Amino acid sequence: MWPDTRICELFGVEHPIVLSPMAGSAGPELASAVCMAGGLGSLPCAFLTLDEVRNHVTAVRQITTKPLSLNFFCHEYLEYDESEERAWLDRFSPYCSELGVEPTLGGPSFNDIPFGEEHCQLVEELRPAVASFHFGLPDDSLLQRVKKAGCRVISSANTVDESVWLESRGCDVVIAQGTEAGGHRAMFLSKTVAEQAGTMALVPQVVDAVKVPVIAAGGIADGRGIAAAFALGASGVQMGTAYLFTDESWASAMYRSKLHSARDDGTVLTNVFSGRPARGFATRLTRELGPIAGKPMSFPMGYGVIGQFKAKAEAAGSTEFSTYLAGQSASLGRAGSAAELTRRLVQETREHLSRLAL
Amino acid sequence: MWPDTRICELFGVEHPIVLSPMAGSAGPELASAVCMAGGLGSLPCAFLTLDEVRNHVTAVRQITTKPLSLNFFCHEYLEYDESEERAWLDRFSPYCSELGVEPTLGGPSFNDIPFGEEHCQLVEELRPAVASFHFGLPDDSLLQRVKKAGCRVISSANTVDESVWLESRGCDVVIAQGTEAGGHRAMFLSKTVAEQAGTMALVPQVVDAVKVPVIAAGGIADGRGIAAAFALGASGVQMGTAYLFTDESWASAMYRSKLHSARDDGTVLTNVFSGRPARGFATRLTRELGPIAGKPMSFPMGYGVIGQFKAKAEAAGSTEFSTYLAGQSASLGRAGSAAELTRRLVQETREHLSRLAL
Repeated sequence: MWPDTRICELFGVEHPIVLSPMAGSAGPELASAVCMAGGLGSLPCAFLTLDEVRNHVTAVRQITTKPLSLNFFCHEYLEYDESEERAWLDRFSPYCSELGVEPTLGGPSFNDIPFGEEHCQLVEELRPAVASFHFGLPDDSLLQRVKKAGCRVISSANTVDESVWLESRGCDVVIAQGTEAGGHRAMFLSKTVAEQAGTMALVPQVVDAVKVPVIAAGGIADGRGIAAAFALGASGVQMGTAYLFTDESWASAMYRSKLHSARDDGTVLTNVFSGRPARGFATRLTRELGPIAGKPMSFPMGYGVIGQFKAKAEAAGSTEFSTYLAGQSASLGRAGSAAELTRRLVQETREHLSRLAL
Repeated sequence: MWPDTRICELFGVEHPIVLSPMAGSAGPELASAVCMAGGLGSLPCAFLTLDEVRNHVTAVRQITTKPLSLNFFCHEYLEYDESEERAWLDRFSPYCSELGVEPTLGGPSFNDIPFGEEHCQLVEELRPAVASFHFGLPDDSLLQRVKKAGCRVISSANTVDESVWLESRGCDVVIAQGTEAGGHRAMFLSKTVAEQAGTMALVPQVVDAVKVPVIAAGGIADGRGIAAAFALGASGVQMGTAYLFTDESWASAMYRSKLHSARDDGTVLTNVFSGRPARGFATRLTRELGPIAGKPMSFPMGYGVIGQFKAKAEAAGSTEFSTYLAGQSASLGRAGSAAELTRRLVQETREHLSRLAL
């Protein structure tokens, strides 16, 4: 029933709909629900310990053995630098007295190590259908082991150059991530978000540049977007924000409140949350320190500082310091179960494609 | 043969393809060619004298009586301010000696008056099928006279709020201009380009917000983009950059050379060209003074300064000071006649929509 079946064949799924791996916002509940509904469920593994990853995969496997994607980050690892954090914290000084925060140093508390030897061994042990990477790809020797373990390899490109680079290094599928997308920009060759293209422009140019199938990401939240992605030449879609609305996501009540009042012009690409550009709801913080701050804290060390202000502000009922990532089509989101959403997306796409037929 | 025929019926055209009015880059030759091919040809009338507009319309009318659109600017008019221009020119001081420019003050040499009484009388005299506005709409009394003259009124929105505003004031069709689009952002309510959405996200949200038909603009350069626009719920498309490549555009040899080497990541939204944000090819100027400069020269006064540096630089073979506006899909452009391009677009769209049918 799909105009292009390459993604379904490569991943072994019924529908070419990939759940965006949303670190911190979704886990085994959402991944398994999307798998069960015929899409490709994804587990965000960045910032988790190896045991946590193993536990999440086990939790999915108790529900379904359908194809699953594990997503890892390939950012450049930098040692924590206290002087850098102190300089970054200086910019928050007006907020310390206002919110009553007495900040502690030390960086984020989670595991910030990029994909390496131990992750690779874990992938060889767990053998997911798909290994998904963000911020580029791991070293070639590791990547070859991932492929040898039977995983299809996917990663995101923000530019044509990045898509060609990913294909040349062995990606089985390239995700063309347009500027509409919520979450972190992949940008591992591209240096500035100001030059990156929207989904409508990026997808056909990437499709023309690579031979592997292309998954469109960014601004796709309903059947219209999926139909449009196929029209542009994509073989599938990756969707995150639409699934944040579902029962199974980990989005908090405050996060959901922001999602349900989302506007087309309510998000920005900002590096103040984590140190790397990501799209999320505009807040006082993105307006006053960003949206693109010069010399931000190195990724992902920024989370250490912001987390403390977020906690205090949210306790006082404010989301102005919250890192609520979302894409530009958040206003199209709908509550319900992930299974219902997936069914609805498939049905809507079918209707739109039929309506368009001449 | 179109999935939605409202634009064809409203404008009296065969194909729901609107030529973007590209001030300075196209005139009667391109407009008449698009009209003849069944699309809606547009004459950019901003920055022209009334006599020039009349002459351009006459030139089109000698070739075809098909429906034509006249486009006018509705920017806020500001008196020329020499001290402002002097301050803006200060930022160019490093380039004066390098390029041998001895800048003269005085603002741009063209007619920078926004749509007003005299333009309205001209529209009442010429009675084009469509009156197209950018940067909002004229005063209500003028707008009602334009409508009374029998013109369909269209204007561009960068946000849902702007689309609702345009509809409520009487626009017959709203153009949803995504961030991919070349040329000036409409942004008459929206204050910052950082918050504006890409075409993939903007179009369905505007379609949901207004009852009038929506034309998609931004990143659309071939049949894939047109098919995608219809999938998103648009009733037609507006395309500019793709037509810059045609024989009939006024793009210079240097401009065409930039177009033919265009990349997906080669343009930026910048206010250094004119004083208002516009998408064009990144240059040394956009990198060194922008892309979004603080306190730029008031629109359109910036052209006065930049024109002098552009002339000197181009004489020396450099386009680093040239205002070459283009969208993010410029790399998809193809040379040939405007008639050939229009035919090809129609044929491609038909093929894509058929291919997508399940």
